[in-house]
Amino acid sequence: MENSNSSIEGNNLRVRKLELSDKSKGFLELLRQLTVCDSVSDEEFEDRFKEISMYGDDHVICVIEDEISGKIIASGSVFIEKKFIRKCGKVAHIEDVVVDAGSRGTQLGKKIVGFLADHARSMGCYKVILDCSDENKVFYEKCGFKKKEIQMVKYFV
Amino acid sequence: MENSNSSIEGNNLRVRKLELSDKSKGFLELLRQLTVCDSVSDEEFEDRFKEISMYGDDHVICVIEDEISGKIIASGSVFIEKKFIRKCGKVAHIEDVVVDAGSRGTQLGKKIVGFLADHARSMGCYKVILDCSDENKVFYEKCGFKKKEIQMVKYFV
Repeated sequence: MENSNSSIEGNNLRVRKLELSDKSKGFLELLRQLTVCDSVSDEEFEDRFKEISMYGDDHVICVIEDEISGKIIASGSVFIEKKFIRKCGKVAHIEDVVVDAGSRGTQLGKKIVGFLADHARSMGCYKVILDCSDENKVFYEKCGFKKKEIQMVKYFV
Repeated sequence: MENSNSSIEGNNLRVRKLELSDKSKGFLELLRQLTVCDSVSDEEFEDRFKEISMYGDDHVICVIEDEISGKIIASGSVFIEKKFIRKCGKVAHIEDVVVDAGSRGTQLGKKIVGFLADHARSMGCYKVILDCSDENKVFYEKCGFKKKEIQMVKYFV
């Protein structure tokens, strides 16, 4: 997902929270580089945006906008799960980390994951977890993660 | 976690949602068989119970109570993550599945996972995922899951 190169451009770009207007800045097109992401209407997008916003700091989606092109070029999300184990502890789950194909190798992925992990820590989580492919393992190791378990999935559709 | 035995007892036991009074029925002691689960005060338990309850059907913890002993002997949780990918799709995350050591081999784990997966499907999720150890892979395969990715973790404490 990311190599060890670094660019001045990448270092100057700011991570911020997703805004409603990001739909028109290529946010969904970016997610399409990650997986299936069909177009949705402005209303559907707004409804989902509001649903997620209702969780406040418990579900944060962040983005990096290329201020020259006005396009969203990186994104990731984190949500906080409240548990009873670990003295009513909390675990953060990182999902949907993606960097635009044309911007890889500029440390944007690391910035996104760093932002999400910092958020998790500030929320008092005792750990942050994510699932990834074998080929992205090295990238996440560079972000300070270690392999632990295996992910199992059951599809309904 | 589970073998292929079945008992009449196991088949008659009902899965239900966690109730506040389950703290006094050994719910935390059961979770302690899964991982670190320090004691919490009744107030801390109630606060966390209420926080999770606020999510309604988006975060459900289920249990099986042994009606003879009055103890909670199995539990699991599922929460629904709202996404933008897959046409504003939803993914269910199963966590903290545990069966009391004295009740294993009675299909209780399968009942718990089935209940949680049925809930995920009824909520319109396109998939349900979970992380487990290599040794529990076979159990989840029997529940209809397949191995997909790897889990990465970063601890804060």
